[in-house]
Parts: sequence; structure tokens; C-alpha cells
Amino acid sequence: MNIALLGFGVVGSGVYEWCRDREDLNVTRVLVRSPKPAVADISTTDFNDIVTDPAIDIVAEVMGGLHPAYEYVTAAMKAGKHVVTANKALIAAYYTELTSLAREMGVGLLCTAAVGGGIPWLVNLARVRKLDAIERLGGIMNGTSNFIMDAMHAAPVSFPAILKEAQDLGYAEADPSADIDGDDIRRKLVISANIAFDAVLEEEDIPMFGIRTVTDSDIATFKAKGFTCKLLATAAAAEKGVCAYIEPTLVSADALEAAVPKNFNLITYEGVNMGRQSYYGQGAGQMPTAANVVQDCLTILGGERGFYTHNATPMALDGENEAHPYYVRTSAPDQWLEDNTAERWETGVVTGAVNTYEMLAWAKKQLTVDPALFIAGIA
Amino acid sequence: MNIALLGFGVVGSGVYEWCRDREDLNVTRVLVRSPKPAVADISTTDFNDIVTDPAIDIVAEVMGGLHPAYEYVTAAMKAGKHVVTANKALIAAYYTELTSLAREMGVGLLCTAAVGGGIPWLVNLARVRKLDAIERLGGIMNGTSNFIMDAMHAAPVSFPAILKEAQDLGYAEADPSADIDGDDIRRKLVISANIAFDAVLEEEDIPMFGIRTVTDSDIATFKAKGFTCKLLATAAAAEKGVCAYIEPTLVSADALEAAVPKNFNLITYEGVNMGRQSYYGQGAGQMPTAANVVQDCLTILGGERGFYTHNATPMALDGENEAHPYYVRTSAPDQWLEDNTAERWETGVVTGAVNTYEMLAWAKKQLTVDPALFIAGIA
Repeated sequence: MNIALLGFGVVGSGVYEWCRDREDLNVTRVLVRSPKPAVADISTTDFNDIVTDPAIDIVAEVMGGLHPAYEYVTAAMKAGKHVVTANKALIAAYYTELTSLAREMGVGLLCTAAVGGGIPWLVNLARVRKLDAIERLGGIMNGTSNFIMDAMHAAPVSFPAILKEAQDLGYAEADPSADIDGDDIRRKLVISANIAFDAVLEEEDIPMFGIRTVTDSDIATFKAKGFTCKLLATAAAAEKGVCAYIEPTLVSADALEAAVPKNFNLITYEGVNMGRQSYYGQGAGQMPTAANVVQDCLTILGGERGFYTHNATPMALDGENEAHPYYVRTSAPDQWLEDNTAERWETGVVTGAVNTYEMLAWAKKQLTVDPALFIAGIA
Repeated sequence: MNIALLGFGVVGSGVYEWCRDREDLNVTRVLVRSPKPAVADISTTDFNDIVTDPAIDIVAEVMGGLHPAYEYVTAAMKAGKHVVTANKALIAAYYTELTSLAREMGVGLLCTAAVGGGIPWLVNLARVRKLDAIERLGGIMNGTSNFIMDAMHAAPVSFPAILKEAQDLGYAEADPSADIDGDDIRRKLVISANIAFDAVLEEEDIPMFGIRTVTDSDIATFKAKGFTCKLLATAAAAEKGVCAYIEPTLVSADALEAAVPKNFNLITYEGVNMGRQSYYGQGAGQMPTAANVVQDCLTILGGERGFYTHNATPMALDGENEAHPYYVRTSAPDQWLEDNTAERWETGVVTGAVNTYEMLAWAKKQLTVDPALFIAGIA
């Protein structure tokens, strides 16, 4: 099959590399904004050269961003071409539009690299869904935040200092907010939950609390109590929809999540009859991420059409039955927190079981009076 | 597609359960030795009723044992039927015969449930192999031995006492040797390594050391030194073949392997360009194991033919470049051990880096003079 790459950055050049010696997949065209010597003979700056080329079977979108990526992939599908993308923002934002267009046109639309980089998470989630119903999914879905939390547990270091180190290593971007506040995870969670529950969730509605305000004293307290703090995502089947949220979570120091080092991910589903299965690997990186793009092309070459799931029904967030204790550190007194306090730790308090959505809403409000507030669910 | 089950034990009845409400897969015949009321109307005690029935597309062998399973699945393939099996002993023992017969007949032969129960290990190993070369694979591939090791680290308990508990819980069989001496793992390792390296390894040639002789004092020593002991399998690409072995291994107490609880498995490959990816779940259990049998049927329904890999070349074991330190506890003095001792721990000695095959050969010999010998590689 002939592939046109939209973009020739880190992932795009990785895809080109993986395909170079293959006979079944050929990169025959690359859309670039500026000349790329490695692919000079097949480059174009005009998307029309790609969408009107009948020899191109698959458009692999690895340029990122919402626009013109959205316009390009919809035009490609309307022209009868299969689309593979690594763009989580795009899929999360235009889930209904893109998946229904793929079904309507009878083309393949796959985005395995969009969640977990090179980890074969979405394909295995789709595989288990063919048999079993998913009860719950989530885990460690962002390498940058895990790198930071891992380092803060390994040795006392302030959040700003380790963030700077992550930026110097290229693990965190100059504006790190997407990684440390949860936005990046939220997109991956939306895509995963949509596939798991045949749902369409609104990304912006999912409550989240990041790791921006965690301190080395918080971590020292957690360690002394036998806990490890990780930024975890959760999406669970609920009576009236899906309960989805992202929050720092204290897991037992001997839990599998606690042992996830550096910028690795550990993503888990629990099936009604399958029980728990988890997938571990680096959630980013050029060749692994590009590999999932190429694997999607091979899947389409094997005859797969449409998206991972055939249904996409708008679904509400329902947090009614999700409750657990929380660690809360705030310098601004609050009556609701006082009423819910069950225990006092060195650096903060521990609540009784509190409804998750209630706590995340409270935390959002409390941040306006105490910008240094930190909370963590206790698993 | 129509499926005939050979056997209606734990896995067979699980397959029947998974398929019951499906329209794409129907269990239309079950080979039984004694009457099974649940499937009375489709039962037969005569395999000829199955092999001569043109309506049967897939023969799912879930009876276990080498014979007559081997005769049945070869006859089924010769009759043009696809074969799915959960039988690791069968695949490990007749790897060349079965995989070449499947290729010759153009039928599907899949055995995902044979390694890791419900964990999608073999399918993902085969998937990554389409792009990348595997450098190394293995991990925790037996739930019973992990249950025992996990319990021995959680609280001081003797090996015989915890083995008895595992037997009472149904995790270990009356004759536990296959689980605790490594034979079960060795079969799974052979199948995995064969697929990963396009190889055919001889099961009996792979050296192994089990956990039968580990004591609570050994475990106390390991914990004091910051280690956790797990029974690990390894197969690595080597210059003149494959280096495969099974041995108790001391991993850092904060390693991912150390956090694997109860009867769970954690199976890992390292790809040249993909890096490390791991798969976690229960390595046994009725519905998960049966699910992998059904998934294999769905894969065949999707058009897949042949085996996971197209090549099967007999390959030698080559342990020349594999060396690491060992913990050794023996009451019988030995000059070679003395010469290689680098450190003395409370309950045993630690060697310098010793060639793995040399150590495992020495241990086999040493067991004849000291049946209580215990060794563990140090990762």
C-alpha cells in the first residue's frame, strides 16, 4: 500500500524509517512546510497533490494540531483514502465526526499511536471489547508526569527543580501545562473511554487535578505512610454514563503502579469476565510511536475498515457512585474540609470517603483562595 | 464459523460460555469422554464425527495431553480445518510438525491461550515481530510459583506450608512439579522464543532451576539486601542461536517484577527499536484462558491463516555471552563455588559474574550431593 505522510517531524520521520525496507508499505508522498532533504524527491507543500493522487491508499497524519489536520483527514476520507493518525487532540475533539465519516466512506481510521505512544493499548482494548464488557480503565498515561513523580520519590527534590530537569532532558515542553495539569491524559482517556464504552465524552467536562502543586514534603509524608503518589486517570462504567476523572493518587508502595519508573506508562482495563490486564511501556519516543502508526497501516492492509468500535453515543459523566478518601493540603481554612476530615497527617489532612466529583469541584474552587492546594485520592 | 470443541473441561466450558450468545461463532460439536448434560445434544465420543463433518470450520483442542491431541489436531488440519489450541505441551513438543502442516494445508493454527492464559502475549509478540527484531523476552510466566514467592515475601512461611495452601486454593496441583520446577514455564518459553526468533528450540535442552528448595531464611536475607526473588524465564538472541533458561532471580525490590502479586504474570519483550513492553494479567483462570481461544477463532474468522510466524528453523542454545552474579546456598563444600565467591551473605554466598549455563550445569551436579541447594541469579 502507498502511504502519504502529512508532516515529517519526529514521528513522521520514524514512520519513514520503519517503512524504508518494506515491500508491503511504501511512503510515496510527504507533505512538508519547509524542504526536508531526506525526502526531497517525494515532498510537496500542496495537500491537493496527495488527496487527488489515486495511487495513495493511506494518509498518515503526523503533523499534530487541530487545523488544518481536521480538514486534511476529512478530505482524505471523502476521497476514499484510509487515515491513520497519531493526533490525540484531533481524535478527542472530533470523535463523532471522524468516526462516522470513516464508517460512511467505508475507509479505515486508526489512531493507536495517539494513546500510549508505542504501547499497543487501543488495539488490545478493542480486541477485548469484542468479547467482554469493560468495567474500568486507566492508569499512568503520561510519561512526563510519571518521570517527575518518580524522581520526587527517589530523592527529595522540589517540583520546579525536577520540572526544569525534565525540560532539559526533552521530556517536558517549554510550556509543561498539558503534561502536568492533566490535559494530555484527558485526551487519551476520552479516546480510551469512548472505545471501551461505545461512548462520546466531552473532553472539557472531565474533572482533573494535576501535580503542579505537589511538594517534596507531601512526598515525604506519603512515603512515611507507605504510599506512592502517581497521577492516574480513571474511566469507569456508571449507571447513567461514565465516571471519568484524573487526579494524583496514593497507591500502596508495593502496588504495580508504584513500580513504574521514569517516563513509562502502565495502562489497565478491567473486564467483567477477563479481570485486570495491563500494558506497560514507554508512552512516547520516536520509533515506538511511529511503530504504532505503521502497525495501523498493516492492519488496514490486512483488510480492517472503519474505527475500533462501531458505536459512538454521546454519554453523560456520572460520578454518583465513586467515592474514596483524600489527602488534602491547604493553608486556607474551609468548613467543608473540616467536616470531612477523618485524620491528620504531618503535612495535610485525610478525609473519609468523599464523592470524587464533589472533591474535584471543591478543589477547583479552593484553588482560587489557595493556589498552593494539593489533593490526592487514596486508592 | 462453526467450532468443534475437543474436550469440555474448565477451558472448554468457558469457550462454550463465551460463544453462547454470539452469531459469528457457534459451538456445534463437542468431543467428550463421558456425558456432559450442558451439551448433551451436540456431544459425541467419536472424533470421526467431527473430522468428517464438512460444516465444522475450526477444531478447538482444549483436552490437554500429547495423545490423542496430536493425532486429532493433525487429522483436523489434514481435513482442511483450522485449529485453535490451549495446549502448550502439544505445541512445544510438535512445533515443527504442527506449524508446517498448517502452512502446507493453508489453515489457521493459533495457540494464544497456551502462554499466559488470558494475556494477549503471543498475539502482541507476533504483532511487534512484523516490524522489529526481538532482543530478549521472558518474565513471570507461571502463576502458581509467583503465588508462592509472593506469599513467602509477605510473611515468613516455609515453602512446604505455602505450597500446601496453594494446593488447597486450587492454584497448585497435587503433583506440583511442573509449576515449581519450571517445566510449565519452559514450554511457554519455547513457544515464545520460537515465535520471537523464528526458531525451533528443544524444550528438554533448556536448563532450569526451580523454587522447590527456597527457604524462609533465604527470603529474609534477600529482603534485608533490598531484593525480591521471582522465578523468571529468559530467552535472548545470541550469536549462535538463542540463550534460554529459567531460574529464580533476585530483582530490586522496586522493580516492576517485584510488584507482581499473587498468581499474576508479567511477560516482557525488548525490541531493538521498540524498547521494552510488558503484558500483565492472570496467567490462568477459566474465562480469561477461554477468551484467548475464542479470540483466536475470531482472528481466523477475520481471514488469518498459518501460524504466528512463517519460519521455524532448528536453533541451538548459545549461552556463551550470558553472565551475572548468583546467590548460592549449599551445605556441601565445593571448590568451584569457593573460587567464584565474591561476597558472603547471612544464609549463602554471592558469586562474581558467572556464566549462566555454567552455573546451571554446576547446580544440577551439586543437587546430587546437596538436595537442599538453592541458587538465584542476581539481575
